[in-house]
Amino acid sequence: MALVARSEACDWFETEITLPEKRFKYYFKLDDGREEVYYCADGFLEKPEETNAFFYPYINHYDLVELPEWAQGEIIYQVWIDRFFDGDPENNPPGVRSFDALPDRNTYYGGDFAGVMEKLGYLEEMGVKILYLSPLFYSGSYHKYDVIDYKRIESIYGGEEGLAALVRAAHAKGMKIVLDAVFNHCSDQHAFFQDVLCHQRQSLYADWFTIRRFPIEDRAQDYDSFAGLIPSMPRFNTDHPQVIEYLVGIAEDWTRRLGIDGWRLDVADEVSHALWKVFRQRLRNVKKDILIIGEIWNQAGRWLLGDEMDTVTNYAFMKWLRSFARGEIGAKRFWERMGANAMLYKTPIHTYLVNLVGSHDTTRNRRYVGSEKTHELMLMTMLCFSGIPLIYYGDEIAMDGGEDPDNRRAMQWGGNDSLRLRIAALGKLRSQSDALKMGKMVPIDVSDRVLAFSRVYQNKQIFAVANFDPLPTNPIPVRRKTTLIFGHARTEGKTVSVPGRSFALLEENT
Amino acid sequence: MALVARSEACDWFETEITLPEKRFKYYFKLDDGREEVYYCADGFLEKPEETNAFFYPYINHYDLVELPEWAQGEIIYQVWIDRFFDGDPENNPPGVRSFDALPDRNTYYGGDFAGVMEKLGYLEEMGVKILYLSPLFYSGSYHKYDVIDYKRIESIYGGEEGLAALVRAAHAKGMKIVLDAVFNHCSDQHAFFQDVLCHQRQSLYADWFTIRRFPIEDRAQDYDSFAGLIPSMPRFNTDHPQVIEYLVGIAEDWTRRLGIDGWRLDVADEVSHALWKVFRQRLRNVKKDILIIGEIWNQAGRWLLGDEMDTVTNYAFMKWLRSFARGEIGAKRFWERMGANAMLYKTPIHTYLVNLVGSHDTTRNRRYVGSEKTHELMLMTMLCFSGIPLIYYGDEIAMDGGEDPDNRRAMQWGGNDSLRLRIAALGKLRSQSDALKMGKMVPIDVSDRVLAFSRVYQNKQIFAVANFDPLPTNPIPVRRKTTLIFGHARTEGKTVSVPGRSFALLEENT
Repeated sequence: MALVARSEACDWFETEITLPEKRFKYYFKLDDGREEVYYCADGFLEKPEETNAFFYPYINHYDLVELPEWAQGEIIYQVWIDRFFDGDPENNPPGVRSFDALPDRNTYYGGDFAGVMEKLGYLEEMGVKILYLSPLFYSGSYHKYDVIDYKRIESIYGGEEGLAALVRAAHAKGMKIVLDAVFNHCSDQHAFFQDVLCHQRQSLYADWFTIRRFPIEDRAQDYDSFAGLIPSMPRFNTDHPQVIEYLVGIAEDWTRRLGIDGWRLDVADEVSHALWKVFRQRLRNVKKDILIIGEIWNQAGRWLLGDEMDTVTNYAFMKWLRSFARGEIGAKRFWERMGANAMLYKTPIHTYLVNLVGSHDTTRNRRYVGSEKTHELMLMTMLCFSGIPLIYYGDEIAMDGGEDPDNRRAMQWGGNDSLRLRIAALGKLRSQSDALKMGKMVPIDVSDRVLAFSRVYQNKQIFAVANFDPLPTNPIPVRRKTTLIFGHARTEGKTVSVPGRSFALLEENT
Repeated sequence: MALVARSEACDWFETEITLPEKRFKYYFKLDDGREEVYYCADGFLEKPEETNAFFYPYINHYDLVELPEWAQGEIIYQVWIDRFFDGDPENNPPGVRSFDALPDRNTYYGGDFAGVMEKLGYLEEMGVKILYLSPLFYSGSYHKYDVIDYKRIESIYGGEEGLAALVRAAHAKGMKIVLDAVFNHCSDQHAFFQDVLCHQRQSLYADWFTIRRFPIEDRAQDYDSFAGLIPSMPRFNTDHPQVIEYLVGIAEDWTRRLGIDGWRLDVADEVSHALWKVFRQRLRNVKKDILIIGEIWNQAGRWLLGDEMDTVTNYAFMKWLRSFARGEIGAKRFWERMGANAMLYKTPIHTYLVNLVGSHDTTRNRRYVGSEKTHELMLMTMLCFSGIPLIYYGDEIAMDGGEDPDNRRAMQWGGNDSLRLRIAALGKLRSQSDALKMGKMVPIDVSDRVLAFSRVYQNKQIFAVANFDPLPTNPIPVRRKTTLIFGHARTEGKTVSVPGRSFALLEENT
């Protein structure tokens, strides 16, 4: 067994075995050279018997984690449709702002499906495989996280036809489309909630929401709402079989009609497990290899047992990388956190965790870390890390922005092209590298301000070194001679050194 | 927080809180008087923030563990129908043996539903609330764990009418009936498996089983069977939606038709979680407070999250009590094992764990521990323990027997009546005591050969002391004066002492 992660509290060891049968008993022998003890289902024993073993009584199909192979390690690009590119001014709502104006709480910019379609080449250049589109069902707000009608696609984005055209164009380039499933809550303008406001306890939909006491009033605190805070977004009762049927039906329909490739589940951890279990089963019946990403910020083990989601937004990555970037923690602590975080999930999921340095829900990373170079080093680290890297639109050009709504500025086309080209080059490289997409990740200890790691896949090794320090690294010893494939480094015999505030990707010579 | 369990590796602390909302963040402060540190979702931190907390994002109905209240802490009696009592010789198969003859691998004794019905008073006297009947669907074997037809009840037991009469009679006495759901496998004579043998890959049922390669032969190793060992019992493919529909439908039908109160799930841990999740949902729709007991010998956490079973056979209790009884471990280690075992499961389940000292799958406890008195002390310990005590028929008269088939001897009516009366008295006492049925259990350290514990319920305390040592215990200090309500003890002021090889149950004076 090999040590694969270590934190201030635990060491984790791992090995891989092949079973001749679908049942398996096991225990662990701990041996420090002086003493032997066995770790079993019954605790620490000196002489375990078969009855003390941990046990897989039978490995059913249900117990296997089946993930969509096409998505492993690929790059996601998150597009905020209204803010990305205006391909068709005809469908704009009245009073759209210029792309240079700063947004406030209900500003429209006219971005649409046609705009995204026009920019597919831009994304392709960056090695992007998966487009994750912001909410696009009919809604009264610019953000559309409060849906009024799930069966209608926003006309200001180009409607169903526009989306169908975008899906076809993306598919033609081998790119996949992920939609945002906002199923935890809806708009208080949604017909069903309006029905409850009108008919109260007598409404057919009275138990579709989580009502605390009747009668209810709109925008009061007498029903549960999103995050317990926003009464204009009443929460669905997602334990209710009819609600499950309705919402899963919506996702099924759109998947079938448009050929959607995946869903990002908004506020996934507030929605009932009952819904997600049905969701997975039914959506996989529509499309066997659909990708299901839960938006979960905290420990997500319960959702990743194989019968709900494929993966989650790995905000732990963002949290600790940002903390590292600001010098609050060192490399050792960063790897401890990453190791402990990965160990919450089954091994096959590690190369699917959706890493990000920021999203529409956080201050822009560029602003948070206060330095474009630091931001760049973080993006590059992410693009070589184990998992599915998610680029929030505009991060590739280091767009600035504070908290919501300032983190949702319109795309600054043409800004910072030199950074964009470097990110695109590395993204493209990743998109063509099995080692970066699927390889096992092994941290390398260099110094407190350097994140170095190898990615190992089928005897191939790639090394990434992100030097956050102003000084060059000491020569880092490597197993064999290596070749620089991206960034800046000096290789000398079996060592590598990387200049201050620089990034390097190296490949072991074969 | 209070220490509730402790093992060689861990201490467990517990507290109870009431939440004003359905969401909750928390972390733990560890303080040894000199140093403070916080245990959080992100490990051990000195200054945690909200983002580091453990998190219940929203407590949905699905997350709650709902258990049938009527079953909490009640006594189960396991009846092997053929071996219990012959109430109606008319339905006997040819060649039944005398109740005094020892069994071999396919012996019939003529026991039936009418016989069980005649003995309901006998069980009532013992405080039994739940009758768990051995398999009773049509089958070619005496044990009926290989069902040929799930829609037909054994005529040699009295058929559907006989069972219906038994259920009515039990219900009239306030007793409940639990049937054995043998859903992991069936008989190779089952029509669907015969169809596969006949039509091979073309059979409609070809994927209802787990076939390794076609063509298959009966009793060969080319399909999965019970425990991987017994080809006359082919394993169902319990991931398959049609198989799930078929088997769950069987349980639904019988529950509805006969008013069955619960199911004991045979080899529950080899069956797919997919089946058990549907089983719980559908059966609870038929009968809201149905009791679902899984036969699981090992750690069963995955099955007890609230969406599959209510409880499991707590073989850990048997294993460690037997080990203690034979002197292989002392009281301290026994309590460590019991604590660590309980901590695998959510707190509400603790008073539902099905404790046993033996079953049809183990050597008779009397034989295993080699002493009737030791056996008696164990039964009494079980009857005061936290959980649902299960009495295997005949254990109340210390019936003897080695391994299968010798552990399934016919009931020796009238044997050992003095022991039977003592067990019945304690069982009756339990059946009327909220503290014994629902109380929290707190171990008391007396000595290595004494199992002592209190049961605490609404300010009421009961003490149980099982002295396995030949010598009397030292005086055991108690909080208040106590009164002996069962067994043998000397109370003197605020102490209690129990004679050698004796049991005592005491109640705190109010």
